[in-house]
Amino acid sequence: MTSTQFYEPVQEELLIVEKKLSDLGDKVSSDAFQTLGELLGNVLEAPGKRTRPAITLLASKFHPHDNEYPHIMATAVELLHIATLIHDDTVDNSDTRRGRATISSTWGKDIAILLGDYVFATSATFVCDTNNVRVIKRFSETIMELSSGELAEILDAYKWDLGRIPYWKRIYNKTASLFCTSAESGAVLSGATESDVQSLKQYGYNVGMAFQVIDDILDFSGTAEEFGKPVGNDLLQGTLTLPSIMLIEKYKDENPIADLFDKGGAKYLERSIEMINNSSIIQDSYSVAQEFCDNAIKSVSHFPDSPYRESLINLASYLMERRT
Amino acid sequence: MTSTQFYEPVQEELLIVEKKLSDLGDKVSSDAFQTLGELLGNVLEAPGKRTRPAITLLASKFHPHDNEYPHIMATAVELLHIATLIHDDTVDNSDTRRGRATISSTWGKDIAILLGDYVFATSATFVCDTNNVRVIKRFSETIMELSSGELAEILDAYKWDLGRIPYWKRIYNKTASLFCTSAESGAVLSGATESDVQSLKQYGYNVGMAFQVIDDILDFSGTAEEFGKPVGNDLLQGTLTLPSIMLIEKYKDENPIADLFDKGGAKYLERSIEMINNSSIIQDSYSVAQEFCDNAIKSVSHFPDSPYRESLINLASYLMERRT
Repeated sequence: MTSTQFYEPVQEELLIVEKKLSDLGDKVSSDAFQTLGELLGNVLEAPGKRTRPAITLLASKFHPHDNEYPHIMATAVELLHIATLIHDDTVDNSDTRRGRATISSTWGKDIAILLGDYVFATSATFVCDTNNVRVIKRFSETIMELSSGELAEILDAYKWDLGRIPYWKRIYNKTASLFCTSAESGAVLSGATESDVQSLKQYGYNVGMAFQVIDDILDFSGTAEEFGKPVGNDLLQGTLTLPSIMLIEKYKDENPIADLFDKGGAKYLERSIEMINNSSIIQDSYSVAQEFCDNAIKSVSHFPDSPYRESLINLASYLMERRT
Repeated sequence: MTSTQFYEPVQEELLIVEKKLSDLGDKVSSDAFQTLGELLGNVLEAPGKRTRPAITLLASKFHPHDNEYPHIMATAVELLHIATLIHDDTVDNSDTRRGRATISSTWGKDIAILLGDYVFATSATFVCDTNNVRVIKRFSETIMELSSGELAEILDAYKWDLGRIPYWKRIYNKTASLFCTSAESGAVLSGATESDVQSLKQYGYNVGMAFQVIDDILDFSGTAEEFGKPVGNDLLQGTLTLPSIMLIEKYKDENPIADLFDKGGAKYLERSIEMINNSSIIQDSYSVAQEFCDNAIKSVSHFPDSPYRESLINLASYLMERRT
């Protein structure tokens, strides 16, 4: 399966979203603020997977309606995602993203901070155009959750004995929250029943959690070439993820991660990666991700059969095949 | 006159705002996110002048109502102001603010970026509690304007021939926009007529513009001790303000600012400061600020006499006496 397959039923609407994103860069340029428009255009046109807007659009298809709010909302969730990437790349000192130089590496941290703020605010302005206070409020809470997830990653760095609970909370905040909101808002704006809204929100939550768990697995099992980052990069940054937490659980008293975090040293990193790859940990982590995917599929299984339901199910299944 | 005088008619309500601000730090701490709560508490409790929330509260007094939305809104505008300070201090590498060490100097730029995002989002969440889409949308646009004003300051740095138009636009974006929104939202949430809303919005605009012009004057005429920054700091950063634009207008072909921006050198800075202080420029700049203040007072002069109208007028007059 390719990722384009599950986009198919909303392909045309995704083009509307792309158009709204590129219009935004043009609008800012013509507002006598040319440099900012160009900066923004570079970011908006970088090819992304557009997974979150696809979810918003798909989630809006379970109740008949003829309003354009889901298009606006889909644009907003992608803009919010882009804003978080701009700030995350700034915090992480990343040089490239989606194959292009990051704003912070090209223009410096200061411009990246302010451009990120601008894109955050723009995303919120789009959401306001839906005129739906529930959706607008959920969106603001999501920005709070995204930033507190990223903050937790920094504040909890190099604490090797945290266990699973802070991990679930952190990955909900930094990843699943926006997937949740993408699905929930599409459903709310289509006028779906509250029970259907909750089902789609559950779908978004589970897909988001699976997405991040798989991301965390790939940090150990992928190759540096495939992933564009060194293997074990999370551990190198002091960030515990599911595979490393499993390693600590297995070898509480003699785990190399405690040594790595407390003393540093390449040999502890290598030993950690080796132990994770030579045990059942990767497989066990995939089982956890599979459980989230199964729950996602279960959340939408009671909807009548349609290309949209099929796409949501395919998207969840496709996640498990993700390798980059 | 002291600043507390114009706060008097809303003094009790400002205490409610203070309480909401400090509760927020406590709430975040108790949400099992203690470090973030402590970080936030440090910022929220730093003694500020609370000018913007006072304007929101005062502007809500021209139409009888018994709702609490203006308190919520006043908290939101102060939170937004705090969020911009966190990011501005990060961009400017400032060590202290309101007499305390800045977040970025204590905790580093990365935490400051993310904590700023968190406070931005929190302010937006407060605004959502007003359930008023007009106010919510205006608030998001204000965040866009704030960040584009700060961006303009960086992107236009060291361009000495820009003239006044980009200056007015920049100070509207970075300062007057939030004053405008503070007044407008208080009026809207009180249920004022559209014509009264527009008058109060005009008040906010003019007070905000005057505030920034005076800030820019003080950068040249204050002493480093009074102001906590070196004299001529804006020029040093490559930022044109009204006094320096007036200097360039007076001496188009032989102005030291062109030399300072093109070649650098302390002697050009000293010469610029000297020429500004030994001419009518400071006085001329004060006249411009006075005009904004007069317009602000004119905007509210048709309202029936009340302690609230009196306070708004006093606040505008007090601005002209500002020395730090």
